[in-house]
Amino acid sequence: MSAFELQSLDECLDKYLPPEELKEVKRILYGVEQDNSLELPAGAKAIAEEHDFEIKGYRFTARPEQLRKPRLVRVGAIQNSIALPTTAPIEQQREGIWNKVKNMIRAAAEAGCNIVCTQEAWTMPFAFCTREKYPWCEFAEEAETGPTTKMLAELAKAYNMVIIHSILERDVPHGDTIWNTAVVISNSGRYVGKHRKNHIPRVGDFNESTYYMEGNTGHPVFETEFGKIAINICYGRHHPQNWMMFGLNGAEIVFNPSATIGRLSEPLWGVEARNAAIANSYFTVPINRVGTEQFANEFSSGDGSKAHHDFGPFYGSTYVAAPDGSRTPSLSRCKDGLLVTELDLNLCRQVKDFWGFRMTQRLPLYAESLQKASSLDFKPQVIKDN
Amino acid sequence: MSAFELQSLDECLDKYLPPEELKEVKRILYGVEQDNSLELPAGAKAIAEEHDFEIKGYRFTARPEQLRKPRLVRVGAIQNSIALPTTAPIEQQREGIWNKVKNMIRAAAEAGCNIVCTQEAWTMPFAFCTREKYPWCEFAEEAETGPTTKMLAELAKAYNMVIIHSILERDVPHGDTIWNTAVVISNSGRYVGKHRKNHIPRVGDFNESTYYMEGNTGHPVFETEFGKIAINICYGRHHPQNWMMFGLNGAEIVFNPSATIGRLSEPLWGVEARNAAIANSYFTVPINRVGTEQFANEFSSGDGSKAHHDFGPFYGSTYVAAPDGSRTPSLSRCKDGLLVTELDLNLCRQVKDFWGFRMTQRLPLYAESLQKASSLDFKPQVIKDN
Repeated sequence: MSAFELQSLDECLDKYLPPEELKEVKRILYGVEQDNSLELPAGAKAIAEEHDFEIKGYRFTARPEQLRKPRLVRVGAIQNSIALPTTAPIEQQREGIWNKVKNMIRAAAEAGCNIVCTQEAWTMPFAFCTREKYPWCEFAEEAETGPTTKMLAELAKAYNMVIIHSILERDVPHGDTIWNTAVVISNSGRYVGKHRKNHIPRVGDFNESTYYMEGNTGHPVFETEFGKIAINICYGRHHPQNWMMFGLNGAEIVFNPSATIGRLSEPLWGVEARNAAIANSYFTVPINRVGTEQFANEFSSGDGSKAHHDFGPFYGSTYVAAPDGSRTPSLSRCKDGLLVTELDLNLCRQVKDFWGFRMTQRLPLYAESLQKASSLDFKPQVIKDN
Repeated sequence: MSAFELQSLDECLDKYLPPEELKEVKRILYGVEQDNSLELPAGAKAIAEEHDFEIKGYRFTARPEQLRKPRLVRVGAIQNSIALPTTAPIEQQREGIWNKVKNMIRAAAEAGCNIVCTQEAWTMPFAFCTREKYPWCEFAEEAETGPTTKMLAELAKAYNMVIIHSILERDVPHGDTIWNTAVVISNSGRYVGKHRKNHIPRVGDFNESTYYMEGNTGHPVFETEFGKIAINICYGRHHPQNWMMFGLNGAEIVFNPSATIGRLSEPLWGVEARNAAIANSYFTVPINRVGTEQFANEFSSGDGSKAHHDFGPFYGSTYVAAPDGSRTPSLSRCKDGLLVTELDLNLCRQVKDFWGFRMTQRLPLYAESLQKASSLDFKPQVIKDN
């Protein structure tokens, strides 16, 4: 990787390209033909300034319809670094993160957000690189009744806001098992449900299969006051069929709380969640943490390089992609940030009517093909030149 | 769309960004960390200059392995405009295109290409916007024995090159039915097999469902001397499950001969085939025609706008994406061009070993889920907040 670090791809393009070229580059790269920025209230910007995080606003509109009113929803996506060294006591580490994110949720409320989502495993450092169980498993908590869900339930009710948070779950009724889980809290403050990460990585520093298994909760869509939402956790982003099932179950917005680093996945980041938005005619919200996390014990990255105490910076770059293929710019690559996006959910059905991807997807063909491909004696369809 | 027209996104970035910024932008956008251009022989460049088409070369390398030698393959992708007005006699129109593309195939041979692929329906204007059957159906020919396959078979043998071409097929044994079909010709000059377009668009000016039905050839992979290849024709690009089946059948390179216009799909172009390369650990080669085609009778675009004689320029922008998420720059948005790319096919398995997407894809889960989703009484998995 270059020693030179870019804070933001978008700011770089804005700075150097002449206006006409910039407009065409943004159209080709982002599918945006006119300014889609959203003015945010002073109160929200003041909180961001006071607590030193970035705040940005964008909007996606839909055509007026004769029989439906616009269905405007404001979504807040939060990316952040940890607050204390990874050697601090567990409870202090968690509270440090809570405190900084509470301010970001307050700013989201000021900005009129109806739904807010955190990054993956947001209450802790992303310690799965270490393959050590102690003390990291102590961060796990029950999805329904854990301290973080309780804390957020109060905020959800106070701010009339659906909150999705992504944690390490302790499944007490099933033998204290650990899962990687997203929890949905209603704007009434009630626990609505949870979803467990379907696809677990074994790549580079992401030794997560050491800690938890593939999720057993299917592909639930949560029908809230503000729309039908789902969560595709981190590595599930690489699996188009995972995205697809949330679409088949009716999702209009799919959040993708993540934790991923530049050397591994940055060139993939702008591609995968955006492709999912296109293929499934819904909005996607990929969220990634920022900062470099240091660990006391060295670990290796599975690539033949020497053991080390950190695995490089998480690159943030949270954005929102729309069903028509357009997208917002990214948040910073290195700073805490809140991305506020106003969506008109009517755009989902409008894009379905226009492009027809649902109509043309031939599900029975693929149900049969995947069935065959799953069998042990699967014979690939190969035509040989001989 | 802006009145200002950019010839090439890449040339624009190269021109305006300072060197350090450019390097980081290319890393983030294209996953390319160092110069990956491929020097092409003078003979190939001379043909391009003489016949006024762009020629560019790039390479994707893989790590050295101890037990396998590199498996280097050179792939040529051809994008072109039509040669004569759409009102000229059918045979002259076809010959005009043949003649310009023959020169491009000759340049590909000079550049050492082992496999060459054309754009979609390459022998004709993309007349499906008109919804008229006459005279366009006359362009259809038999995949195995049609004049274009015969002409190309001679070139394939002469140049020791696999040629894939994408045509309107006349299926004589099945009642003169018409299909949208890709034909694979061996480097021995032999017909190897064909694949019919699986997903047919009904969007904007793409009234193709008027002319042919969804393909009935499954997802064949053609095992050639130069690797296992497949063809995902045009609109199949929007369907991740179509890409996936070619991967499950063992494809190492999947070509995507296309015909698509800027107003419709340009912001999607860099996303979809590249996402497929990532998700399936193979190379993808999306190819799009250039130029604006005028038709004698007016037609409408299904979007409430007035009837017109053309539907705007095809934007070219042919590129190659690799299984590690990196990609080449695009060919021009408006000029005929030949993209030569050297691939080390060993990269496919190396990326599978690294990322593990095949291992973690949970096919039986999705086979079952798609089966349920296909049934008439399908109940989506919805958790209500109430």
